[in-house]
Amino acid sequence: MRKDRHRVTEAQRDKATVDSVLRNALNEDIGTGDITTLSIVPEKDISKALIIAKEDFILAGLSFAERTFKLVNKDVKFKAMKRDGSKIKKGTVIAEINGNTRSILMAERTALNLLQRLSGIATLTSKFVRRVAGLPVKILDTRKTTPGLRFFEKYAVKMGGGCNHRYGLFDGMLIKDNHIAAAGGLKKTVKLARSSGYDLFKIEVEAKSIKEVKEALSSGADIIMLDNMSVDEMIKAVKIIRFHKADTIIEASGNVNLENVRAIAETGVDMISVGALTHSAPASDISMKIGR
Amino acid sequence: MRKDRHRVTEAQRDKATVDSVLRNALNEDIGTGDITTLSIVPEKDISKALIIAKEDFILAGLSFAERTFKLVNKDVKFKAMKRDGSKIKKGTVIAEINGNTRSILMAERTALNLLQRLSGIATLTSKFVRRVAGLPVKILDTRKTTPGLRFFEKYAVKMGGGCNHRYGLFDGMLIKDNHIAAAGGLKKTVKLARSSGYDLFKIEVEAKSIKEVKEALSSGADIIMLDNMSVDEMIKAVKIIRFHKADTIIEASGNVNLENVRAIAETGVDMISVGALTHSAPASDISMKIGR
Amino acid sequence: MRKDRHRVTEAQRDKATVDSVLRNALNEDIGTGDITTLSIVPEKDISKALIIAKEDFILAGLSFAERTFKLVNKDVKFKAMKRDGSKIKKGTVIAEINGNTRSILMAERTALNLLQRLSGIATLTSKFVRRVAGLPVKILDTRKTTPGLRFFEKYAVKMGGGCNHRYGLFDGMLIKDNHIAAAGGLKKTVKLARSSGYDLFKIEVEAKSIKEVKEALSSGADIIMLDNMSVDEMIKAVKIIRFHKADTIIEASGNVNLENVRAIAETGVDMISVGALTHSAPASDISMKIGR
Amino acid sequence: MRKDRHRVTEAQRDKATVDSVLRNALNEDIGTGDITTLSIVPEKDISKALIIAKEDFILAGLSFAERTFKLVNKDVKFKAMKRDGSKIKKGTVIAEINGNTRSILMAERTALNLLQRLSGIATLTSKFVRRVAGLPVKILDTRKTTPGLRFFEKYAVKMGGGCNHRYGLFDGMLIKDNHIAAAGGLKKTVKLARSSGYDLFKIEVEAKSIKEVKEALSSGADIIMLDNMSVDEMIKAVKIIRFHKADTIIEASGNVNLENVRAIAETGVDMISVGALTHSAPASDISMKIGR
Amino acid sequence: MRKDRHRVTEAQRDKATVDSVLRNALNEDIGTGDITTLSIVPEKDISKALIIAKEDFILAGLSFAERTFKLVNKDVKFKAMKRDGSKIKKGTVIAEINGNTRSILMAERTALNLLQRLSGIATLTSKFVRRVAGLPVKILDTRKTTPGLRFFEKYAVKMGGGCNHRYGLFDGMLIKDNHIAAAGGLKKTVKLARSSGYDLFKIEVEAKSIKEVKEALSSGADIIMLDNMSVDEMIKAVKIIRFHKADTIIEASGNVNLENVRAIAETGVDMISVGALTHSAPASDISMKIGR
Amino acid sequence: MRKDRHRVTEAQRDKATVDSVLRNALNEDIGTGDITTLSIVPEKDISKALIIAKEDFILAGLSFAERTFKLVNKDVKFKAMKRDGSKIKKGTVIAEINGNTRSILMAERTALNLLQRLSGIATLTSKFVRRVAGLPVKILDTRKTTPGLRFFEKYAVKMGGGCNHRYGLFDGMLIKDNHIAAAGGLKKTVKLARSSGYDLFKIEVEAKSIKEVKEALSSGADIIMLDNMSVDEMIKAVKIIRFHKADTIIEASGNVNLENVRAIAETGVDMISVGALTHSAPASDISMKIGR
Repeated sequence: MRKDRHRVTEAQRDKATVDSVLRNALNEDIGTGDITTLSIVPEKDISKALIIAKEDFILAGLSFAERTFKLVNKDVKFKAMKRDGSKIKKGTVIAEINGNTRSILMAERTALNLLQRLSGIATLTSKFVRRVAGLPVKILDTRKTTPGLRFFEKYAVKMGGGCNHRYGLFDGMLIKDNHIAAAGGLKKTVKLARSSGYDLFKIEVEAKSIKEVKEALSSGADIIMLDNMSVDEMIKAVKIIRFHKADTIIEASGNVNLENVRAIAETGVDMISVGALTHSAPASDISMKIGR
Repeated sequence: MRKDRHRVTEAQRDKATVDSVLRNALNEDIGTGDITTLSIVPEKDISKALIIAKEDFILAGLSFAERTFKLVNKDVKFKAMKRDGSKIKKGTVIAEINGNTRSILMAERTALNLLQRLSGIATLTSKFVRRVAGLPVKILDTRKTTPGLRFFEKYAVKMGGGCNHRYGLFDGMLIKDNHIAAAGGLKKTVKLARSSGYDLFKIEVEAKSIKEVKEALSSGADIIMLDNMSVDEMIKAVKIIRFHKADTIIEASGNVNLENVRAIAETGVDMISVGALTHSAPASDISMKIGR
Repeated sequence: MRKDRHRVTEAQRDKATVDSVLRNALNEDIGTGDITTLSIVPEKDISKALIIAKEDFILAGLSFAERTFKLVNKDVKFKAMKRDGSKIKKGTVIAEINGNTRSILMAERTALNLLQRLSGIATLTSKFVRRVAGLPVKILDTRKTTPGLRFFEKYAVKMGGGCNHRYGLFDGMLIKDNHIAAAGGLKKTVKLARSSGYDLFKIEVEAKSIKEVKEALSSGADIIMLDNMSVDEMIKAVKIIRFHKADTIIEASGNVNLENVRAIAETGVDMISVGALTHSAPASDISMKIGR
Repeated sequence: MRKDRHRVTEAQRDKATVDSVLRNALNEDIGTGDITTLSIVPEKDISKALIIAKEDFILAGLSFAERTFKLVNKDVKFKAMKRDGSKIKKGTVIAEINGNTRSILMAERTALNLLQRLSGIATLTSKFVRRVAGLPVKILDTRKTTPGLRFFEKYAVKMGGGCNHRYGLFDGMLIKDNHIAAAGGLKKTVKLARSSGYDLFKIEVEAKSIKEVKEALSSGADIIMLDNMSVDEMIKAVKIIRFHKADTIIEASGNVNLENVRAIAETGVDMISVGALTHSAPASDISMKIGR
Repeated sequence: MRKDRHRVTEAQRDKATVDSVLRNALNEDIGTGDITTLSIVPEKDISKALIIAKEDFILAGLSFAERTFKLVNKDVKFKAMKRDGSKIKKGTVIAEINGNTRSILMAERTALNLLQRLSGIATLTSKFVRRVAGLPVKILDTRKTTPGLRFFEKYAVKMGGGCNHRYGLFDGMLIKDNHIAAAGGLKKTVKLARSSGYDLFKIEVEAKSIKEVKEALSSGADIIMLDNMSVDEMIKAVKIIRFHKADTIIEASGNVNLENVRAIAETGVDMISVGALTHSAPASDISMKIGR
Repeated sequence: MRKDRHRVTEAQRDKATVDSVLRNALNEDIGTGDITTLSIVPEKDISKALIIAKEDFILAGLSFAERTFKLVNKDVKFKAMKRDGSKIKKGTVIAEINGNTRSILMAERTALNLLQRLSGIATLTSKFVRRVAGLPVKILDTRKTTPGLRFFEKYAVKMGGGCNHRYGLFDGMLIKDNHIAAAGGLKKTVKLARSSGYDLFKIEVEAKSIKEVKEALSSGADIIMLDNMSVDEMIKAVKIIRFHKADTIIEASGNVNLENVRAIAETGVDMISVGALTHSAPASDISMKIGR
């Protein structure tokens, strides 16, 4: 599963980008100072704090939480007790933090906000993945991510066992109905795409009906996305595609939920993309408890 | 309801901040260029596009969506058909966009991602607000917001009829158990807060039991937060507080949901804060359709 | 006096902000290079330098001076001989610096410029504080600070024994004549403030006459600022306020100077705010002397 | 006096730099919002405001004040009634502002803080300039400016009738005792400077005694700075320099004040530099009054 | 030739990026002010200036030159007389500029520096393209671009009639010898690439010999790059590839120059990539002449 | 040759500026991740890599290459085998790199791009310098540098044995024909320059004919630039200047190449400036080879 770790490495390289998001979030929360803590907690007070699961979930984002504490005070010690991608049971201690009490309290909310969101995404992804267990299909994310957090959320999808679709508009070619309308017909559209000079990309085409599937096939698309089809239509579409050009990659998309995902997977598609993974995952419940 | 509009005005002033979030999100998505659109859509092609509700919700963030299109191409026309805070029915056209097709397609996803999230928050907030209709209580947000989007999300809470708790650690004094532990007792803690020089702030104290409510009262807290109490405990707490110091503000917090919020409101508390408003609201379903 | 150190701690957290101001100032001075030093001083030359008081003053900003040298060259050693808030005598060595001569010369002016200004502010503040010695009154700063240096200057006020008023427009509610005019009457204004949803803030109202003091009192203001009143008026105002609502906080403001500050303090006000602390404090005379 | 306007033009070009300073100052003050104004002043309220002199001074920085209001709200109208460099009488209306009341109130303090400081500098400079009226001597500023505001303060010096010394370490060569010590003797130092490759700069040398003046002369310095000399010494130094190399530029520096500046000027030096112009000028008293 | 204009459109969108490069370059040159111009040219002086070709070349970057003048002074009028991609004859007037003389002089060097470099690249590219005229082959750029100017330089290649290879490491998969060594064999490497989850990209493999070409073919590479082969080897390689899998894209790379490019093209490869286009193109000679 | 190292020291100080250029270049190349390397190279794989000269050249920029690798991964070891300014023979190992394979591959192109360009500049400069060996003349660069890289390129010129002319418009006064036209005559122009208040700069005047040389001489210029003159004209010009004012500095400029530079030098000018050093130097051929 090495590939699931790609983005962590990237994170290690692009620390500047990660730090910029975390610093921004810290500034949002701390602003000109944590007036409660500064008033009450002695300057050199030292504490131990535990990050604790308040429900079951799949963990994602622990290194970002650690970095958040470090950005407030590089001398705070952060000991991870669990790894990203692990199944966490309610009550589990995920990390132990030691250091200046003021610093720990100032970083708490920002660290938890990110950790709760990413673990929520990993947890929801994991549910989809488990539903299709045993079938040769990938669960993919979409571009429906939170503004500013795409890197983090796509990482969380991987931690939940999912795969990443294109990162953005620049690293994948996906032809939708709007493109076809603007260019005037699917065949012409794919031809334009082929002659565009972007020869290093495969061409993916969205199809909303069997008719469009056939057009996509004859246009020479490398990947066909079955958009908002019923399971019955998908079965038919997959059959046609496999018959004509077996190595075409097939993606299912639209209205996918935990109830219908297995039936969709059983149609024989290669990939199922699910917007809800990133736009509607409820946060996991995680808290921090300061001891003495 | 003028106060519900505060943050819009601030947004008008601090366009630089808003723009920075939107630009960042656009860069995330567009990167070095929308290769599909650039390949297929003619450079000077013009389109009309509609933003359409795919389900019922409360609208929030339309001016940010407009700004997103303008940042890609200032010549794109954006005609809002609805106002933030309105109840939107499935199928309603929320806005009409006219201009360069490439520009519209490049901004689409970023604009929708923000609009869907903020409308989701406004919609969930509105549900809580309707549950307590007729009672003299406010529904408040918390600091459990998405990193980098606090301003936007607190605005969405207002559009849903909720109110904003403190913005961050710098503009409100809220004493929690961790502060009390670090300082050594509630009374001492409040005394430290009083002598801290932050004389312009009221002092809010968290209480987890009737015993702590009494301590908070005798310490002279201006606001008491009943944390994670049962409804029965809350009834008792409110009674005690009102008897001893009637103008103390009372806030309920912890494990609030749509099922129990009315019962909590009926205890007579002044404010109920709900973390889920911002950390677990599912996105509203909104799409863009390009015509010709 | 722990509270006087709040902002230092914040500085430790928000090193990014401090560094940004210092880097900006260094760039302003050094630009594309210190052509004199680069021409004359050998690249690896090592020196010892002393920072020396050329007059008496209260020290403020030494850690920022240290940081300035470190930003030019992290290997320069900076040994503080005095602490912020200390009374410094003419001729005293405040710090000893060892390291690369070029680096020391490049940082000199920027470090001194900040140190001289902050010590000037601490010194002037300290004079006001000493004038009211023995009386239960605080000397406060205002928002009349140098653009870009508010954090540093409010810190210097604390080092001189003063206290900080609100940091900015966002963390304190202060109703002035302009607000009253815009809203239409003091009573209505305070009512608007109370219903604004900013329930965590106390409400301060400016009063220019006994009549306005009475209006402010009856409106329920938490803090009353006596603006530009004569000492006689203040005596009267304090008497009225204490009689009607003893725990109202009273602030005096406007035309305060070293000659009249004690008389004002003796009227019984709780706080006296002085704009000159930050807008008109002459710089303290401090120089750097390189030895061999 | 066209040359006195150089930096304004530069300001027009480098609006980005000016805006960055003003935006930073606005953020410092407004932060997450002006809670008083947002609570009390209706969103669309319109006002007229006057900027008024509360004492006599020389005006400097009015275009920056205007820009500050524009940055908050570009629709605010700002009508300058006076020009930078003018003598302003107490009670004079300097500018009239019309527009959204909230915007005007949010920008007020930041605009005034800069205007008061720059006018204070222009006013003090003007006093020095008037003291030497009729004599062929220039009053110069130094590098003892406020961190981050050098551009603004050097501009204010010009508005007061002064001239600018080098902007920073990069655009002028000034050899001080520390350089001489590091290089080992004045002659060797000047030789190093001459062979450094910076052939486009004149070489200025600091001299603290007649002996050093003679050394500087024989080393071939283009400019000699008489540092901290008594008037008698200066008379002697000027005589020697004029005798040996008449076109050498002579600068006086150190301990210059309004009492001794004329006597120094009468020694025949070409330029007198005064650190106090920028590091110790008291702010001019200027206020804003909102009408209806 | 619409596709050749892709990046212009992107430039229109990402004006922020373009402006940031231009502003940075202007600051580099102007710094604290153009002391010559400020001293000599009257503040409100108006001039007409012509940008003139001093030799023959292909034009690229005129809109960036225009933007440079606008960034200095938005009121300067810039009238383009030629279009990017045109053949320019020595002596031709490329653009006419009207406006404030100071502004024009301050922007001159920065605008010309970029224009000369980009036209140089377009001119060199055009020479390669003309050498292969009539053959079905594309001339491609590489990632050997000037740090910070990749966008501009890839645009210039298009203006010269060339095509763009991948933009960077993120939008194309190109397996080189180093990757093969690290993974342990070509077959294993391609397999890893196929299972990496980046299903939207074609896979390009570098081959240095006929043996490696065969391995690449059998591994299923979509694109094969013939690296540093002789023309004879290339002829052989193309034959083998076309025989086994006709739709494989073939790229030639390494030691390509104007002398051998046609012979390489005649081997039947689809694309020839040339590092020199961006790393060694001499600047075109272009100057600005101010009239009255 | 200590003076040749000035800018390295500055680089040490202004690491922030250097890092900003390198980070920008890395982002340009790596973007959202090196998909090839992430797919194929194991996360913790370690390699040794060599930077090798593929032709003869003068080395410049090795510390920037090192910094590039460090910015990707601070744990990568970089061992420089050669020093900037050295003559490098084809086949020489310039540096040895050890560390994480992914990190090394991600930094490779960016590091080489800069190194190749700077070495190319140093090499071309060195050729010019060698041509004038034995003559008392300096080879100077111009402001015709790559946008954003002026600091790096002026450094490379020094490494090749050249000298730097003014850095930008702000640190040298150079009067050209356009200035003279705008002001109305050379004499008036120089007079304006003299009275401009920039007393610390020498005044350089461009002369295109013997007539203009005489005018420049009589105007009192400190430096005269012979612009685009023939060698014969230059001989005459030098004679006239040396006769009238022997210490005037003389610069030759325009159409200088390797063929004519020695003849120009023999005319007796002090400095020869060559635009091609920075705008048309071909890149040196340098590659990186990963071992195991």
